[in-house]
Amino acid sequence: MIILEEVYMNFNIILFDNFETLDVFGPVEVIGKIRDSYNISFFSEKGGIIKSSQNVRIETLPLDALGEVDVLMIPGGQGTRVEISNDSLIHSIRELSEAAKYVLTVCTGSALLAKTGLLKGKGATTNKVAFDWVCQQDRDVAWVKKARWIKDGKFYTSSGVSAGIDMALQFIADLHGRDTAKRIACGIEYIWNEDAENDPFCI
Amino acid sequence: MIILEEVYMNFNIILFDNFETLDVFGPVEVIGKIRDSYNISFFSEKGGIIKSSQNVRIETLPLDALGEVDVLMIPGGQGTRVEISNDSLIHSIRELSEAAKYVLTVCTGSALLAKTGLLKGKGATTNKVAFDWVCQQDRDVAWVKKARWIKDGKFYTSSGVSAGIDMALQFIADLHGRDTAKRIACGIEYIWNEDAENDPFCI
Repeated sequence: MIILEEVYMNFNIILFDNFETLDVFGPVEVIGKIRDSYNISFFSEKGGIIKSSQNVRIETLPLDALGEVDVLMIPGGQGTRVEISNDSLIHSIRELSEAAKYVLTVCTGSALLAKTGLLKGKGATTNKVAFDWVCQQDRDVAWVKKARWIKDGKFYTSSGVSAGIDMALQFIADLHGRDTAKRIACGIEYIWNEDAENDPFCI
Repeated sequence: MIILEEVYMNFNIILFDNFETLDVFGPVEVIGKIRDSYNISFFSEKGGIIKSSQNVRIETLPLDALGEVDVLMIPGGQGTRVEISNDSLIHSIRELSEAAKYVLTVCTGSALLAKTGLLKGKGATTNKVAFDWVCQQDRDVAWVKKARWIKDGKFYTSSGVSAGIDMALQFIADLHGRDTAKRIACGIEYIWNEDAENDPFCI
């Protein structure tokens, strides 16, 4: 366990039914390795059990119990196709993202963030298969197809599913130094693709 | 979604408090990509909410509700240090493993499986940091340190955390062909380390 006393942040994840499992738990594994610096919590609109597309049933708190935001993470998955029309959730994501110090999205989670309008004029990425659909949510975003992840100001967006792990390690590198990120990658025996532009899935 | 009508198996995962998050949800992401062939369920000794070391609270069914085993998966994590002395759980793992067509372990999950005695004389691996402790659970196992994963008969054991994803892809390759495994890896934008002997974390 790596303890970094100088940082303590709430790391809040918004879930919805049919989120993509690894979008969430890849980054959670990375962030959780310095858990004395991050308080990881899971939220959904109304709280209770939320089910991923892979039948993972996870307990969440209701959004109105969310206090300090610090870091907000939004996963992707089939559920985004429904939630993109959920005005109430998009409104909450906008408010929470404005308040947050950092906002991370994985895969099609960037569609929900783009829908808030907060990515206008900013660089962002998303997964390959749903790329066109995500871009439609806001044409004023500088969408980048060939990127493992994109950081633009406080916004980190990643490509599909596993790319979220690479992005989370970059987030750690930015806040705690590259050596810390490398130690975590080594500890979880993960071959970190450190180069955001090395995206072998963009063809 | 890839549908393989010829295979339908229950994929049962045993959880305990302080399991390691990605040990579970990496393989679940892979297996879940052909979910019409696998029925993924989560069990714990008494059922209810089980918490990972990274504060993931997941709903489980009690072990006595487990019907057909087919595939059994056992993750690792700090919790294994407690469960290794839980005779009742080890007894259940032994019975379920004997009944299962396939048994998969990730990271220190192999310690719990080794404790049953079922790995005697078989090749197996585990993570690097806890290697000596895991080996102590049964010296009659042919422990291999430099291996991303080991398959011996129906037993698949993997190295630490992320290695479980590579192992799960190999499991898919063995049962459904390498092309299917590659399609899944590509779909989740995961750079699959296909070579079980290519283990950069063994130094």
